[in-house]
Amino acid sequence: MKLDLDTILGAMLIFIPISIAAELLHLNGIIIFFTAALAIVPLAGFMGKATEELSKQVGAGIGGLLNATFGNATELIIAIFALQAGLFEVVKASLTGGIIGNMLLITGCSMFLGGLKREKQTFNSRVQGVNSTMLMIAAVGLVMPALVSHLFDFNTVEALSLGISGILIIAYVASLLFSLKTHKHLYDCGGEECKPHMSRNRAILLLLVTTAVIALESEILVGAVESVSLSLGLSELFIGVIIVAIIGNAAEHSTAILMAMKNNMDLSMGIAMGSSTQIALLIAPVLVFISWFWGNPMDLVFNQFEVVAIIASVVIANMISSDGESNWLEGAQLIALYAMMAVVFFLI
Amino acid sequence: MKLDLDTILGAMLIFIPISIAAELLHLNGIIIFFTAALAIVPLAGFMGKATEELSKQVGAGIGGLLNATFGNATELIIAIFALQAGLFEVVKASLTGGIIGNMLLITGCSMFLGGLKREKQTFNSRVQGVNSTMLMIAAVGLVMPALVSHLFDFNTVEALSLGISGILIIAYVASLLFSLKTHKHLYDCGGEECKPHMSRNRAILLLLVTTAVIALESEILVGAVESVSLSLGLSELFIGVIIVAIIGNAAEHSTAILMAMKNNMDLSMGIAMGSSTQIALLIAPVLVFISWFWGNPMDLVFNQFEVVAIIASVVIANMISSDGESNWLEGAQLIALYAMMAVVFFLI
Amino acid sequence: MKLDLDTILGAMLIFIPISIAAELLHLNGIIIFFTAALAIVPLAGFMGKATEELSKQVGAGIGGLLNATFGNATELIIAIFALQAGLFEVVKASLTGGIIGNMLLITGCSMFLGGLKREKQTFNSRVQGVNSTMLMIAAVGLVMPALVSHLFDFNTVEALSLGISGILIIAYVASLLFSLKTHKHLYDCGGEECKPHMSRNRAILLLLVTTAVIALESEILVGAVESVSLSLGLSELFIGVIIVAIIGNAAEHSTAILMAMKNNMDLSMGIAMGSSTQIALLIAPVLVFISWFWGNPMDLVFNQFEVVAIIASVVIANMISSDGESNWLEGAQLIALYAMMAVVFFLI
Repeated sequence: MKLDLDTILGAMLIFIPISIAAELLHLNGIIIFFTAALAIVPLAGFMGKATEELSKQVGAGIGGLLNATFGNATELIIAIFALQAGLFEVVKASLTGGIIGNMLLITGCSMFLGGLKREKQTFNSRVQGVNSTMLMIAAVGLVMPALVSHLFDFNTVEALSLGISGILIIAYVASLLFSLKTHKHLYDCGGEECKPHMSRNRAILLLLVTTAVIALESEILVGAVESVSLSLGLSELFIGVIIVAIIGNAAEHSTAILMAMKNNMDLSMGIAMGSSTQIALLIAPVLVFISWFWGNPMDLVFNQFEVVAIIASVVIANMISSDGESNWLEGAQLIALYAMMAVVFFLI
Repeated sequence: MKLDLDTILGAMLIFIPISIAAELLHLNGIIIFFTAALAIVPLAGFMGKATEELSKQVGAGIGGLLNATFGNATELIIAIFALQAGLFEVVKASLTGGIIGNMLLITGCSMFLGGLKREKQTFNSRVQGVNSTMLMIAAVGLVMPALVSHLFDFNTVEALSLGISGILIIAYVASLLFSLKTHKHLYDCGGEECKPHMSRNRAILLLLVTTAVIALESEILVGAVESVSLSLGLSELFIGVIIVAIIGNAAEHSTAILMAMKNNMDLSMGIAMGSSTQIALLIAPVLVFISWFWGNPMDLVFNQFEVVAIIASVVIANMISSDGESNWLEGAQLIALYAMMAVVFFLI
Repeated sequence: MKLDLDTILGAMLIFIPISIAAELLHLNGIIIFFTAALAIVPLAGFMGKATEELSKQVGAGIGGLLNATFGNATELIIAIFALQAGLFEVVKASLTGGIIGNMLLITGCSMFLGGLKREKQTFNSRVQGVNSTMLMIAAVGLVMPALVSHLFDFNTVEALSLGISGILIIAYVASLLFSLKTHKHLYDCGGEECKPHMSRNRAILLLLVTTAVIALESEILVGAVESVSLSLGLSELFIGVIIVAIIGNAAEHSTAILMAMKNNMDLSMGIAMGSSTQIALLIAPVLVFISWFWGNPMDLVFNQFEVVAIIASVVIANMISSDGESNWLEGAQLIALYAMMAVVFFLI
C-alpha cells in the first residue's frame, strides 16, 4: 500500500513541467493555479520523506529538531511568497485551514478509516495531551489580537502580535526540549518505520532539490491566486482555508491515514496533531516576524469565523483524544465538524 | 415508587377533558395554556412508555430505531404546531430549553438525589463520551448561523441552516449505526427494566392514541401562547426555554431521576443526555427541513444567550461526566448552572 | 527553605513604618503605593499563617470554615476600601487578576519548578476536578452580566448581578459541605504541615493584629492608586489585574511554590486552585452584596478581555489538571498563557 502512494506521487511529478509551461505560455490563471498545486503535492511528499530520512541518521536530538523545523516547510514557503504578494488574508486563512484541516479532517479520516473494522484503536494519550494543551494555548494567543483589534490603533495591534508571537515561539522551543530531551522516552519510536531507508547524501540532495522546486512552484501558485479568486468567484478566505492548506500537506496526510489503517495510531496522530501544533506555534509566529522584518507587518487578527473554528476544533479534538482511544464514530464526528466549517467558509 | 409515578400520571389525565372544555368555552388563555400543558405531561409519559415497550419486542435494531425516532415525539409535535403558527422564537427557545434542561436540570437532579446517601455513583463514561462529543458538535453547528447571520442576507442564512441541518442528521444516523450495530455491546441492557411489560398490540394502540391526543392538546397549547405571553408579561423566549421545554419531557425526566435514586446511573444518564443529543441532532434539523418544505423557512439563528447557554452546558456537562463518576455536589453544580441561566432568561 | 521565607517576610515588616511615614509626610504617590504594597505582603503572609494555625486547633469542621472564610481576607479588605473609594474597575480587575494569577501564574510556577528535576508529579485529580468545575460554573456566572449588559438598563443588570451572586454563594456553601462534611476523607491531611506550630492564643492575637494593620495599609494603598495610575501611565485595569492581585497573595503563593518543590502537589494545588475558587465564588459575590448594601452597587460586568481571560484560564487549567499529573512543560504552558494575558492587559 505504501508503494502505491509513492507511485501516485511519482506520476504527479509530471505537473511540474506542465505548470511551468502554463506559466510561461500565460495560459488561463485557473490552469496555472491547479497545475502548480498538483505539482506541489508530490514535491511536498518527497521533501517530507527526505527530512524524515535525514533526521533518522543524525541522532534523535538534531533529527527531532530537523523534523520540527522542516516539517511544514512547504506551507512556510507558500506563505512567504503570499506575504510578499501582500495576500495577508490568504496567509492567515491557510494557517487556519492548516490547523483545523490537520486536527479535524486528517485526524477524522484516520480515526474513521482506521476504526472501520476494529472495535477501537489506542494511542499514547499523554503525548496527545501535550499537543492538545499547546494547541489550546496557541488558540488563545491567536484570538487575542482579534478580540482587541477594534479598540487599538494599528501600532498597538502590531506590538501585541509580536509579543504573542515571541511567547508562542518560546513555548514551542519548550515543547521541543520536552520531547527531544527531558521526556524523550515518551516519544520513543521502535517500529520498522524508524529505520533509515535512504543514504544520507541522497536525502540531503532530495531535500535541496525539492525545496528549490517548491519555491518555484509556490511563486507560480501565488501569482495565480487573484485570478482564480476572480474567475471562480471563490473568496481568498476559501482558497486559503480549504485549498492552499491542503496542497502543502496532502502527501503527509496520506501517510497519516495509511498509518491509521495499519493501526499505528501513535504515528498517525503524531503527524496530524504535530503538524497543527507546529503551524500554530512556529509557522504563524515566524511569519509575523518575517513580515515585520520586511517592513510590511502582518498582524495576527483572524476573522471571527476563523477564531471560532480554531477554538472549537481544539476543544473537540481534545475531548476526543483525551482518553487515548478512538473508534470510527469519533472519526466521523471530526469529519462532520470539518464539513460544517467548510460550508461556512464556502458561503462567506 | 414506580407505581406512585404511574398513579400520578394517571390522575393527571383529568386535564385532557378540562383543557378541551376550557378551549371550547373560550376561557382565559392562561387557564387554557396551563391545563393543556398539564394534560400533555401524562400523555407524553404514556407515549414514552409505549415506545419503550414496543421497542423491546421488535428486536434491538428496530427497537433502538423506534426509541431514537419517537423518543422526543411530544416535543416534535408541539414544535410543529408552533412552526405552523409562525412562533419561530418559541420553537428555537424550546429547543434550547430542551437541550440545557436535560443536560443541567435533569442530570443535575439525578446526580444530586442519587448521590445524597452515597459516596459516589458510577456510569459508563464511554457511552457518555459519545453523547458529549455529539452534543459539542451539534452545539458548534447550532451557533454557526448566529455567528454569521449579521453578515449574510436571508437566503444565505437559509442555505447555511439547511447545510448544517443535513450534516447534523447524517451525524445522528452515524451515532445510531454505532449504538445499534457496530458497538451495541456498549449499550447492553441486562436489567429488569429491559423485559417487556406490555403486549405488542396494546403498545401500538397506546402509541397511536397518545399521539393523536398530544397533537390535539399541542394545538390548544400553542394557540394560547401569545395570550399567556401578554397577560403574564413573560417573553416568548422564557415560555419556550423554561415552560414548553419541560412539558414534553416531564414524565421521562421523572423516570431519569427515579432511576438515579435506584443507583441505575447508566439508564438515568442515557435518558437525559440521550434526549439532549436527540433534540440537537435530530429534532432541530428536522424542524428546519419541515419549515423549509412548507415554504416558510425557520433558520437556526439562536440569540446570543441561547448560544452561550448551549455551549456552557455542553462543556460543563462533559467535564462532570467524563470521569464516569458522580456525587451530590456535581449534581448541585449542574443545578446551580441551570438556575443562573433561568435567571437570565427570566430577566431578558 | 521555609525559614528563609519567614525571615524575608519578617524583614519586609520594615515597610509598615516606612509606608505610614510616607503617607503622613505626603510623599510622592508612587512611593506611598509601593511601600504600602510591600508592607501588605508580609502581613498577608502572617495572617494566612495565623488562620491556618488556628484552624488546626478548632477541629476539622470549624477549621475548614475558618480557612475557607479568611483565606483571602487581605484581598477582601483591599477590595472593600477600593469599593468605598468608588474604584469599581480596580476591584473587578483585581478579582480577575486573583483568579487567573492563582490558576496560571502560581500553579504554573509550582508545576514548572516542582517538575524541573522530576519525571512527573501527581496530585488528587478528584479534588482538583471539584475545584475546576466550581471555577467553570463561576466563570459562566461572572460572564453572564457582561453578555447581557448592553441590552439591559442598569436596574436589571443590578438584579442579575445580585441573583448570580446569590447562586454562587450557595454553590460555595455546597462545596464546603462536600469538603468539610460528606467527602472530607478526600481532603485528609496527614503530613507534618497539618500539626499545629503555634498556641491558640498567639494565633488569635496574630490574626487580630495583622487584620488591623492590613486594613490601615489597604486604606493607604487604595488612596494612592489614582496618583500611581496618572504618574506611571498605567491603567487602573493593569494595576488591578497584575499588581493589586499579587500583593494580597504573595506570601501564600510562595508557600504554594515551595510545597510543589518539596513534591507536595496536593497542598500546592489546593492553595492555588482553592484560592481562585474562593475569589470567584465567595469574594466576588460578597463584594456585590456589600456594595449593594451601601447603596452604591457594583455590578458584575467584566470587560471582554477579563471574560476571555477567565474562561480560557479555567478551560486550560482544567485540561492540564484533569489527569492528576503534572510536569515542567505543563507549568511552562500555564506561565506562557499568563504572559500572553499580561501583554494584553499591559497594552490596553
